[in-house]
Amino acid sequence: MGIIQPRLPKGMRDILPQQMVLRQHTLRIVEEAFAEFGFEPLVTPAVELREILLGKYGGDSEKLIFFVQHPGGKEDLALRYDLSVPLSRVVAQYPELSKPFRRYQIAPVWRAERPQKGRYREFYQCDADIVGTASMLADAEIIALVYTILSRLGFQQFVTVINNRKLLTGIGQYSGVPDAQLTGLYRAIDKYERLGLKGVRKELRQEGLETATVDRLCELIWPADGRPASLDNLRAELGRLPLAREGIDELQELLGYLPSLGVDPRCYRFDLAMVRGLDYYTGPIYETVVEEPRIGSITGGGRFDGLVGRFSKQSYPATGTTIGIERILDILEEQPTFSARETLVEVLVTVFSPDLVTESLQLLSELRGSGLRCELYYEADPLGTQLRYALKKGIPALVILGPDELSAGKVAVRDLQAKSQTNVERAAVAQELRALLDRDDP
Amino acid sequence: MGIIQPRLPKGMRDILPQQMVLRQHTLRIVEEAFAEFGFEPLVTPAVELREILLGKYGGDSEKLIFFVQHPGGKEDLALRYDLSVPLSRVVAQYPELSKPFRRYQIAPVWRAERPQKGRYREFYQCDADIVGTASMLADAEIIALVYTILSRLGFQQFVTVINNRKLLTGIGQYSGVPDAQLTGLYRAIDKYERLGLKGVRKELRQEGLETATVDRLCELIWPADGRPASLDNLRAELGRLPLAREGIDELQELLGYLPSLGVDPRCYRFDLAMVRGLDYYTGPIYETVVEEPRIGSITGGGRFDGLVGRFSKQSYPATGTTIGIERILDILEEQPTFSARETLVEVLVTVFSPDLVTESLQLLSELRGSGLRCELYYEADPLGTQLRYALKKGIPALVILGPDELSAGKVAVRDLQAKSQTNVERAAVAQELRALLDRDDP
Repeated sequence: MGIIQPRLPKGMRDILPQQMVLRQHTLRIVEEAFAEFGFEPLVTPAVELREILLGKYGGDSEKLIFFVQHPGGKEDLALRYDLSVPLSRVVAQYPELSKPFRRYQIAPVWRAERPQKGRYREFYQCDADIVGTASMLADAEIIALVYTILSRLGFQQFVTVINNRKLLTGIGQYSGVPDAQLTGLYRAIDKYERLGLKGVRKELRQEGLETATVDRLCELIWPADGRPASLDNLRAELGRLPLAREGIDELQELLGYLPSLGVDPRCYRFDLAMVRGLDYYTGPIYETVVEEPRIGSITGGGRFDGLVGRFSKQSYPATGTTIGIERILDILEEQPTFSARETLVEVLVTVFSPDLVTESLQLLSELRGSGLRCELYYEADPLGTQLRYALKKGIPALVILGPDELSAGKVAVRDLQAKSQTNVERAAVAQELRALLDRDDP
Repeated sequence: MGIIQPRLPKGMRDILPQQMVLRQHTLRIVEEAFAEFGFEPLVTPAVELREILLGKYGGDSEKLIFFVQHPGGKEDLALRYDLSVPLSRVVAQYPELSKPFRRYQIAPVWRAERPQKGRYREFYQCDADIVGTASMLADAEIIALVYTILSRLGFQQFVTVINNRKLLTGIGQYSGVPDAQLTGLYRAIDKYERLGLKGVRKELRQEGLETATVDRLCELIWPADGRPASLDNLRAELGRLPLAREGIDELQELLGYLPSLGVDPRCYRFDLAMVRGLDYYTGPIYETVVEEPRIGSITGGGRFDGLVGRFSKQSYPATGTTIGIERILDILEEQPTFSARETLVEVLVTVFSPDLVTESLQLLSELRGSGLRCELYYEADPLGTQLRYALKKGIPALVILGPDELSAGKVAVRDLQAKSQTNVERAAVAQELRALLDRDDP
């Protein structure tokens, strides 16, 4: 029997226990916030019928879908590409689901993109969506959710940028851009950061817009006086266009709810130049950027009132967000405050000598019963070797039950970070260890 | 744009929020126990190279593997079939991993089996394994882990049945069964429950064993006096065979550790007739059966010292178990004590009237901050409609902030199960709700 070289498919990765320390901590915070906001977990299969996925993401994206087949199977299958399409399928498939349907899903998706640093072909998405209400309260809750999560994760300088697709469409109408050309308009506006005003003007001209139209449009979005476009000014300028007015009304209602939901006013702003990439948004859109360090967006979402309708005559309004967990983890790992704990194990229970193993097992069992994460040392090695093992693995504490401790009814508790050791009453060991761990990793 | 019929591939399923209540609760208990026992999470990709999976599970199993391809991709890929082979690949691939390597993994696997009630083509496995030690302490810990999990899940009459492959091989040698025929021997013994002694004798004869051999074998495993085979008797009979003796020594050591680890003696027993299906076990094997109601095994595992060696010249001893989470969930759902809570949402925050929405949002935000799982009612409906919504969805409590409550500095808290309502000081609402929830679902 030959040895098979152990390796991974291109672009795939293993997440080893050491990398899971931060990841699990982060995902717990996200999941807890989802639950507090009344979102409930949904699980859908990794494998969907191919026809469910095709025609949803646009041509280039579709080329990245992985196909699945079972030899002899008759169905055309594929690995899911995101969590929004499965959500829409679920809502259409089970009309009995109570509405508004608030679900979260934290799960991998698969895309055969060219692998590069930090980008994998299997990666996790964290989505929270509310299906079945057109209320701006739902959109406000999504923004409050994002604020809650990022604050709890320790982010300080972040801003959720808010805009509205109806307003953008209205601006297109105002500028004389036909609806069919709106995507090009969005794309051009989106390039402001990269190309500057001059570059965007050129792009807009290439989209076929008259110079006069381009002038009006740019003056609205990036006024020459340098002040950002305000909703009041926009209302004065565009209020006669029903769609633009609707967008402005939605924005004002949405922004009005945020203070009551406890969102720090420094952490959100309206920005007419934020357009988001996906075709399917229909109303408010939002994405969060971290201002320091300057990296792209770490959450993104918006209202997509049409997606469920792709699977059912009965459509539902819907809004939600993705928390860009992979990018967030990349940032957290680079933070100077990031405590690089190497293991989730808290206590090593040593075995003093083979004849005392029973006592160590009893202690082990008690400590686990009190919720401590304990590992037992298996081999009959000298204490020094057991100590070095704990140090190497990064376990913060160990306990020793030798003949002296036993006869005194005590346990030696060693703090491997503070390099100190104390003898503790047997009944107080768990409590002492808990205090030690809190001290080391506050 | 046509409507695509929303449906799932054959044998796949969605797990809707209502079904997630019990599932999430159960998985949390399992994961917590894994952590207390010092196991750390590992994530491997769903997609593996096909060559990693092939040749590990035996011919018939292999036919159930799903193939994956990316149009234009050059690799032969497949969806993982279990969690043991990926674990073995990981241990071989990263020799720097500290040993013993204790990992758990809770993740879906895919098998194209004929779908039937309760059996799906995507299902979850929960595995905990220890790689890199031959110590029987590790096997004892695995059995203590199983005991801890099942006790915490509320199982009462369960028994972990323990045996040893070395002893079984020794019995084969004693009975004159060539090593190559051992699999047939195991298979025949495994049929005792179904076929009875007579049936097993027939099977063994068909495997080519002499009648005298069959007599000796059956007398060892199912003594005519009806008493189970004891280790002492087996040692007297088989002790001269080195492999049998090794198996008996391992069993005695392993069984000796269990009381110190707090495992109830009614919850485990040695059983010479338990053989387990998989080829790759090499030492102790164990599986847990629930005696009431009588259903098959709900956990299974053992020592597999050879599997890592399929991917590397440097092999490692290893032991571990699967917790049969899907079967366990099936059982828990049928329990009369199973509390069929329909939603994880704990509190509905109502909106008395549009002009009081700000007050409700502030309250909502406070309650969420205290960790309560709250949903906001979005539409401007009468309170009666909001109440009926909470009842229909199964939310246990709701809060009302009307003008009377506001002017009195209070909040109305309604217990939807007890059908009672009290006015509570604003500062005490979260505490009151927590008490109400504990009362309803102790």
